[in-house]
Amino acid sequence: MEPSQTNNEEEEQLITPWEVDAKDGGKIDYDKLIDRFGCQRIDQSLVQRVERLTSQPAHVFLRRNVFFAHRDFAEILDAYEKGDKFYLYTGRGPSSEALHLGHLIPFMYLQDAFKVPLVIQLTDDEKFLWKNLTIEECQRLARENAKDIIACGFDISKTFIFNDFDYVGGAFYRNMVQVGKRVTYNQAVGIFGFTGEDHIGKVSFPPVQAVPSFPSSFPHLFKGKENLRCLIPCAIDQLKDEIKILAATEGLSRRSNEKYGETGKMSASDPNSAIYVTDSAKDIKNKINRYAFSGGQDSVEKHRQLGANLEVDIPIKYLSFFLEDDAELEHIKKEYGAGRMLTGEVKQRLVQVLTEVVDRHRTARANVTEEMVDAFMAVRPLPHMFD
Amino acid sequence: MEPSQTNNEEEEQLITPWEVDAKDGGKIDYDKLIDRFGCQRIDQSLVQRVERLTSQPAHVFLRRNVFFAHRDFAEILDAYEKGDKFYLYTGRGPSSEALHLGHLIPFMYLQDAFKVPLVIQLTDDEKFLWKNLTIEECQRLARENAKDIIACGFDISKTFIFNDFDYVGGAFYRNMVQVGKRVTYNQAVGIFGFTGEDHIGKVSFPPVQAVPSFPSSFPHLFKGKENLRCLIPCAIDQLKDEIKILAATEGLSRRSNEKYGETGKMSASDPNSAIYVTDSAKDIKNKINRYAFSGGQDSVEKHRQLGANLEVDIPIKYLSFFLEDDAELEHIKKEYGAGRMLTGEVKQRLVQVLTEVVDRHRTARANVTEEMVDAFMAVRPLPHMFD
Repeated sequence: MEPSQTNNEEEEQLITPWEVDAKDGGKIDYDKLIDRFGCQRIDQSLVQRVERLTSQPAHVFLRRNVFFAHRDFAEILDAYEKGDKFYLYTGRGPSSEALHLGHLIPFMYLQDAFKVPLVIQLTDDEKFLWKNLTIEECQRLARENAKDIIACGFDISKTFIFNDFDYVGGAFYRNMVQVGKRVTYNQAVGIFGFTGEDHIGKVSFPPVQAVPSFPSSFPHLFKGKENLRCLIPCAIDQLKDEIKILAATEGLSRRSNEKYGETGKMSASDPNSAIYVTDSAKDIKNKINRYAFSGGQDSVEKHRQLGANLEVDIPIKYLSFFLEDDAELEHIKKEYGAGRMLTGEVKQRLVQVLTEVVDRHRTARANVTEEMVDAFMAVRPLPHMFD
Repeated sequence: MEPSQTNNEEEEQLITPWEVDAKDGGKIDYDKLIDRFGCQRIDQSLVQRVERLTSQPAHVFLRRNVFFAHRDFAEILDAYEKGDKFYLYTGRGPSSEALHLGHLIPFMYLQDAFKVPLVIQLTDDEKFLWKNLTIEECQRLARENAKDIIACGFDISKTFIFNDFDYVGGAFYRNMVQVGKRVTYNQAVGIFGFTGEDHIGKVSFPPVQAVPSFPSSFPHLFKGKENLRCLIPCAIDQLKDEIKILAATEGLSRRSNEKYGETGKMSASDPNSAIYVTDSAKDIKNKINRYAFSGGQDSVEKHRQLGANLEVDIPIKYLSFFLEDDAELEHIKKEYGAGRMLTGEVKQRLVQVLTEVVDRHRTARANVTEEMVDAFMAVRPLPHMFD
């Protein structure tokens, strides 16, 4: 793989994860690298210690200094000597069907000599992200490489081989990677306003929220229905990113469809700006009476004369959300707007409506068991979902 | 949640996914938003069409224009009229134990009226990335929110609720998010040389390669052994990022330990620079004789007189990797270095050694079945991994 750009701080020796090369074809100065990375040389006494601990000759790569440096390997040996085991990790990007020689030889020795487990990561996702290949092709190459690895003679009782597209998160993760490949960092900055000091966890998150729009993210629900449309009711504040992220992924799947609600600027972070399902009747009464902005007039006389300004009246807004009865709502708006109904009366009706809603919810929630949560969250088919 | 920064292009109205606010506390101009985002108003005729298609009165949010805009909803209705179903997607960041009212009301109506499934994403990972909470606390809040959602009365035969930390990828994904939270974009650029035009898939990848260093990424192997050390034999070109990424995650877990091999600049992308396990005996002979750089002299006479320069001789390098017999290797180096052995003879021995290795591998690989691949890649405990 090619590095994304030449790194400024590496003037003399280009070292990215994807390339090691001295400038002008010169020789890499390994001593310099060892110093810079805070490593130690692997010397003869360390090799002899390995032989003593494993009761067998060291691998030629150790004996002949092909393995030439380490970090904290002595600490691992100290612990091993006291009976603490460790495990081995290696990985491969499955770029071609043919494994080249030499890559895996030392692992079998280490596994065998120290009697420790080995995990082998096949980064088919990396390959997909950097190369122009399909996910399926990358998965197939990973499997072909697994065969070469197995053919080396690894001990199945000590070896776990996995490819990211299947082990990390299945269909959902594959779609995350598909979306991630279609959105540049600059686009993400334009949408989310990330800065360079934001951590990459944030930068990685938008695909997580985008992929539920694709039916294939839920194979237990929608296998064979990959063209199903998705309707996303959402608030206007979720709109901009949804559109841009989905626009960037166009062609990946039939575009998802959205419509938008605006639910009255209730925020979960300001306790007085919203009615919670945990609020008591007293809380609700207090919040509505003290905090719900009224469009009524300052004095009863003025109110009787001018009526309420319904446009800015929060109790009316809430009633329009929660009072089901159209006729009653119209009646209240008419009477209140004409000044025949007072703010206190409207608020009283709202408190009543909200208290009912919250009471109903509280009772229902008390009846929700852990088993019901497990049942709703079980990864399962829904055979009657369209009935 | 707070936006990471104010977005320059939004001078008058601040709209990030995390906030909608008009400057100076002014009123949001929804008509302007609708235009900018290419949406349409939800008008009375659309509401009536919904009522006709669902044979029931529209929800108050539709009737009273709380839902005020849409994109492609008419297309969904066209398809629905012809018998094509769709599904609903919504999500919540579980920020507090108390759900505020109103968020979920329209979904139950849509699910019920259109008889379609609903997926509800609980973004406990988002919460973890943006807030100072543990993963466990975020998961707990997600479950508490699920109870509120269930209490609303959703139909279990049409509803799938999931939290990202469990559905997206389990333990491995949780560790990816942990690592992602500890590495800034600027750090990632310093390590990998990403540019703004690189897609965010690349930016998201480093944690995928980092987390196999943590035993907790493999609960089927290492449950209860979360402090197990990890040894990562790797080439010097993987060194820099490993160290920096792992240094950035220090404190997350006992630091992993590494040692490094350098396997002779064989690259899978240049077919002549490496011997592949798929090469025939003829391929090997051809590659070694034509491409393996020799430290021998230009003429036999000069070679007999001066001997070979072993430092730059590729056949000697390869023999030191693949010829197990220390005594024979020493003998060859001595004779060749003194000019008593010729390049052709050394290459002939190397071709022999490599052909044996490749033949052995080819036979072994032919015996690897799909079932063996499945067995090695099965997510399973390894009870004898330390025996």
